[in-house]
Amino acid sequence: MAPEPKSPGLQTNMDVEYVIVYRFAKVEKQKATEEFSSLVEALGNVGLATEVRNGESHSLLIFVKVASEEHLFGEVYRSRVRDWLYGVRAAAPPKETRGALESEPMYEAERLRIIFQLITNSEAEGGAGITLKEGKWKNVESIFALHDHAHNKEWINQWARKWFLSPEDLDDIRNRLGEKIAYYFAFTQAYFMFLLAPAAFGFASYFLLGHYSSTYAIVNSLLCTVFTEWWKHQEVDLAVRWGVRNVSQIASRNREFKQEKVVTDPVTGEQVAFFPATKRLQRQFLQVPFAILCATVLGTLIATCFGIEIFISEVYNGPLKSVLVFLPTGILTTCMPILSTVLTNFATQLNHFENYETQAAYDTAFTQKIFVINFITSYLPILLTAFVYVPFGTLLVPYLDIFSVTVKPFAKHQKEMELPAAGFEINPMRLRKQVIYFTVTAQIVNLGMEVIVPYLKRKGFAKFKKMQSERAAKNGGAVPDAGANDLPDEHAFLTRVRQESELDVYDVTTDLREMVLQFGYLSLFSVVWPLTACSFLANNWLELRADALKITIEMQRPTPWRADTIGPWLDSLAFLTWLGSITTSALVFLFSNDGLGPDGTPYAIKGWALLATIMFSEHLFLLVRWGVSIAISKVDSPGRQKERRERYLVRKQYFDESLSELEKIPSLKDAATDENITRRSLEDEARDATLGNSRVEDKFWARQRNWRETAKVGAGLIERSAPTDVKERESKKEL
Amino acid sequence: MAPEPKSPGLQTNMDVEYVIVYRFAKVEKQKATEEFSSLVEALGNVGLATEVRNGESHSLLIFVKVASEEHLFGEVYRSRVRDWLYGVRAAAPPKETRGALESEPMYEAERLRIIFQLITNSEAEGGAGITLKEGKWKNVESIFALHDHAHNKEWINQWARKWFLSPEDLDDIRNRLGEKIAYYFAFTQAYFMFLLAPAAFGFASYFLLGHYSSTYAIVNSLLCTVFTEWWKHQEVDLAVRWGVRNVSQIASRNREFKQEKVVTDPVTGEQVAFFPATKRLQRQFLQVPFAILCATVLGTLIATCFGIEIFISEVYNGPLKSVLVFLPTGILTTCMPILSTVLTNFATQLNHFENYETQAAYDTAFTQKIFVINFITSYLPILLTAFVYVPFGTLLVPYLDIFSVTVKPFAKHQKEMELPAAGFEINPMRLRKQVIYFTVTAQIVNLGMEVIVPYLKRKGFAKFKKMQSERAAKNGGAVPDAGANDLPDEHAFLTRVRQESELDVYDVTTDLREMVLQFGYLSLFSVVWPLTACSFLANNWLELRADALKITIEMQRPTPWRADTIGPWLDSLAFLTWLGSITTSALVFLFSNDGLGPDGTPYAIKGWALLATIMFSEHLFLLVRWGVSIAISKVDSPGRQKERRERYLVRKQYFDESLSELEKIPSLKDAATDENITRRSLEDEARDATLGNSRVEDKFWARQRNWRETAKVGAGLIERSAPTDVKERESKKEL
Repeated sequence: MAPEPKSPGLQTNMDVEYVIVYRFAKVEKQKATEEFSSLVEALGNVGLATEVRNGESHSLLIFVKVASEEHLFGEVYRSRVRDWLYGVRAAAPPKETRGALESEPMYEAERLRIIFQLITNSEAEGGAGITLKEGKWKNVESIFALHDHAHNKEWINQWARKWFLSPEDLDDIRNRLGEKIAYYFAFTQAYFMFLLAPAAFGFASYFLLGHYSSTYAIVNSLLCTVFTEWWKHQEVDLAVRWGVRNVSQIASRNREFKQEKVVTDPVTGEQVAFFPATKRLQRQFLQVPFAILCATVLGTLIATCFGIEIFISEVYNGPLKSVLVFLPTGILTTCMPILSTVLTNFATQLNHFENYETQAAYDTAFTQKIFVINFITSYLPILLTAFVYVPFGTLLVPYLDIFSVTVKPFAKHQKEMELPAAGFEINPMRLRKQVIYFTVTAQIVNLGMEVIVPYLKRKGFAKFKKMQSERAAKNGGAVPDAGANDLPDEHAFLTRVRQESELDVYDVTTDLREMVLQFGYLSLFSVVWPLTACSFLANNWLELRADALKITIEMQRPTPWRADTIGPWLDSLAFLTWLGSITTSALVFLFSNDGLGPDGTPYAIKGWALLATIMFSEHLFLLVRWGVSIAISKVDSPGRQKERRERYLVRKQYFDESLSELEKIPSLKDAATDENITRRSLEDEARDATLGNSRVEDKFWARQRNWRETAKVGAGLIERSAPTDVKERESKKEL
Repeated sequence: MAPEPKSPGLQTNMDVEYVIVYRFAKVEKQKATEEFSSLVEALGNVGLATEVRNGESHSLLIFVKVASEEHLFGEVYRSRVRDWLYGVRAAAPPKETRGALESEPMYEAERLRIIFQLITNSEAEGGAGITLKEGKWKNVESIFALHDHAHNKEWINQWARKWFLSPEDLDDIRNRLGEKIAYYFAFTQAYFMFLLAPAAFGFASYFLLGHYSSTYAIVNSLLCTVFTEWWKHQEVDLAVRWGVRNVSQIASRNREFKQEKVVTDPVTGEQVAFFPATKRLQRQFLQVPFAILCATVLGTLIATCFGIEIFISEVYNGPLKSVLVFLPTGILTTCMPILSTVLTNFATQLNHFENYETQAAYDTAFTQKIFVINFITSYLPILLTAFVYVPFGTLLVPYLDIFSVTVKPFAKHQKEMELPAAGFEINPMRLRKQVIYFTVTAQIVNLGMEVIVPYLKRKGFAKFKKMQSERAAKNGGAVPDAGANDLPDEHAFLTRVRQESELDVYDVTTDLREMVLQFGYLSLFSVVWPLTACSFLANNWLELRADALKITIEMQRPTPWRADTIGPWLDSLAFLTWLGSITTSALVFLFSNDGLGPDGTPYAIKGWALLATIMFSEHLFLLVRWGVSIAISKVDSPGRQKERRERYLVRKQYFDESLSELEKIPSLKDAATDENITRRSLEDEARDATLGNSRVEDKFWARQRNWRETAKVGAGLIERSAPTDVKERESKKEL
């Protein structure tokens, strides 16, 4: 049993399904009253009971629950029938509604999803049509369900105490937070389990094989390939386990879709909004300049900071060097988030301009754009070091004096900013240091940012608010406390709801992106530092728990959505694995002797040998991936068996039903036997005569009435023309 | 209307569906009689009417038709219900059998397929269990349907007169010969239409751009990619048009499958034969040594002949040179078919050893093996010339003197077998000549072999037989003529059936393979000689008609099978397109100046530049292919629309049916309204008192009875805490 939460406000959710926050801070009183009235009317009209309470700073909290369970059942049943028609479930739910729900009870996420759809679906679809922060309802600030604090506490406590998550743990997430979030946890858990292998091998390889080992490179690539293919397989299994297979085919419309004209759908005959695909394709071609823009803008920033850093650390030799060395990092940490935000906004607008019809298509296209930005910010620094700085460093460094401008104010002599007479030497440790930075330091910083910073922010914000109101109270102009008029038995509860209403909304794709980008470091660069996977292993154990904590404490309870895949991130995963086969082989080739050729200089590298290595490695990878994917596709799994069993039973039932009609007709087998009754002599010539006037075909078929006659005639023919030598042979045998 | 065929035997098929040839040449008379009797009994038991007649040289012809149409309808209905359950058709056929067949009449191929299955399916599946040339029925030599000669004649006449085949022509093939053969014709027709583009561009490019033009290479690669992806799209469309989508999921068992043990199927609970997939995987690994064996054996032969040819044509300078030059061709044409046959037999055994459960899996695996053999025999000679002879010729030729042994008997002086003092020069025309040979000469020879040789063989064989029987008649030991005892009204018909019984069985994969291999020349090497596509265009116009002729004249009428794809050849097509992106770029790079570098020698080629070109080209290809496949997937087609419309109608119907139950329950919308009836005062504190003992949750929800009360309470809250500044702003606006 879950322990009782300490705070009285956490003890009950008051049967509330959703809380809707209506903020009237910027609306005239009269208009706010009207809007609010039509809001609750719309909710009431779809059968939702409402209660209103005072909210924080000019807002109202509308509490929503279903007026009668009986009607909710109807909605659930409707949703299940739709699932069946789209192939999400094998069999139609039993026609008797209550029976259907008793044989397969609703789970929490299903219930919350259906109520959320009831609130947000358009009126044509049978919902109340409340659109968050949009159009008519632009003052509806948020719609969120209340956390189940008792359950959350138990969840966090349990996870903190176990090493590995069981499938039941994931089922639990699915039941409460929906399949989309459960897929994130399932993926991260699968990735965590997979990491055990490269971590163990990497650990051994670090001490036994050293850096840039080709053996490690091959094993790591193979493991990454197996993981990617295995996850594709696993995804299907989970979809079956959670009953959401094919759910992505039930497309929900993109609200922002703008039709060009209305056409008659050739399929359904209905009038539908239409936007020509060719026009969209033209717009999609803008992604090419967009990608180039991202690469140029971010690439220039990264390359510049990189150049400054090399100049200061390797060339500059004047005062304040130890401080100035952090200058590029400073520039990067300041400018990068700004540029990223600008580009992300740009990507959003571009995506909007591409005008997708369904939400899924919109999300996929957006994810792809985000991946481009993230790819550049995450991997370009290392790529620059590995494939520009080390091989071409000695060629490029003389040109770095353009960066002397950054240190000019500090340098005392011109000489301090010039290359040492001994000439420049590349620093082979730089690459390793960089990889370690990205795979250890950055991960820890990231984890901290995710959990600790929001916590501090929240605490600080609360304190600030308290101080503010205290000061206001001193000055006499006290802002009335939102909870001042609460009824005593509700006060604790309402205070808690007001807190939850101010939390952020959880976006699972951010977390998923983080994992996929982390996988990229493993696939692309871990050959530089084989302990990469060990670091990730530790990090992800914490990450899983930190994310659980984040969802339960830092965020509003997320609306449970369904999904049957991690979506476009799967493509990113496959792409990173592929690219890994190229970078890894190139890194091994270039650096197996710390970037130096056999004669000690990096110039000895033969271009054709490098390219041949890459080509060989890439094609070997493609071949192996093909083999692995075939081998894995043969693997059976409980989910697949379950699916096949369900399909088999449904088929069997339908087949039996459909063919019951046929049973009444005697089958072909029986028809043959009754011909024996009136058998006449064989090859009866008289029969021919009676059929004198009939068709030649009928005569042909009338000569032998049934198989017995055919057999006799055949026996006669055999007798007449059987080869004599066989008989002789046979008789000889008998002697 | 079809013209009446001249020969009286061709006028009617006597309503015969199938002819079964039972040969008792090697069986003892008694046993033959028994076997024959049980054969006709088995046929009779499944409701087939039989007639027996004398066949050629110790054989019997058993004519088979369905005893009653009524029962055939039952079988057809059963088959259609199964199709529906496997998703081949969207809706279940109407329950009333006759109605079902009237609303959608049976087509000839469907009828023949169902009767063939009735004859050959095992008894457990409701068939007669006749296995061709196998087990109990090893003396059943063939089962074939009779040609519809009137229709065939019309078919050939029509096709000879038109340039392009219409979709209706393909429908006609599908209706009579089944979908599998129709797919071959549809593919060849699509390929023919596609060839118009590269032929036109190639023709222009031949005169304007010359050989090894990079423009031609890019356009040709793009066209090939578009064709491959388009065909994938087209295939689905055809499958819908012909109602065979997903038909490949109805797996038929591989008869040769040998179980390792019997296990309980976790899905159906039935006892099923089982062979572990891991064991099969182990056996499949034998394909690697097999491929190496093929490459070694065939490669050695080809390389040897190649070496001899070069030695004789480029080095040898003695007598009989003009004759000796044909020596390698002689060796090749003698040894190649022998080796191919040996390797194909080996492949068959290997495939058998791999022990596939379904016929489809068996065929796919076999096709892959055959493709390996054909790939080597078809493309290795050109690959050797392009990538070994030209770049490394001058290095290798000195070692060719080992082949002097082949001309030793003819050479007069040692000098005649030595390199000229001036040194060896590669012959840059060799590659082009070879490509022209393979794309023109070999194609014509092949067409001739396919049509004319069998015709001559058949005529010659008939003549030989006639002479033999004449000689036998002279010597008195006359073999009795099979038709001697024929009834006069049947004689012509029976003579014709005896002729058809001796024809070969048509194998569509051979023809399909030919087309795919031809496509390979276009994709891989056409940059050498841009007229390639023109030659193929002409050839394939003839090929289509020659194949029609071959099926109607040289072959027994093929059993109509269903298919929804050209199967594994599609993968071969994709592979050849991919490989084309590599060979084409390499050829352009190497030969754009006839194989000579800027300084006139082939040594100037830079390895890294070649590899970089190939890599760039290959990755560009992969990117373009991805784009093309996405673009094509967006294209709608009549077939897809039809499918969606059917699915939509079925869904709509089911949805309406399932939800009719629900209609009786008032929807959530209605439930809300009746609460208005007994409305009481707002925020009635008395209400709290009456609920004094109830749960805190119930109290919470009892405070506002319906949305009107909520609206009023909300209005009060807004009034109390609405921000004053908004009001001021609003009033300012009013002023």
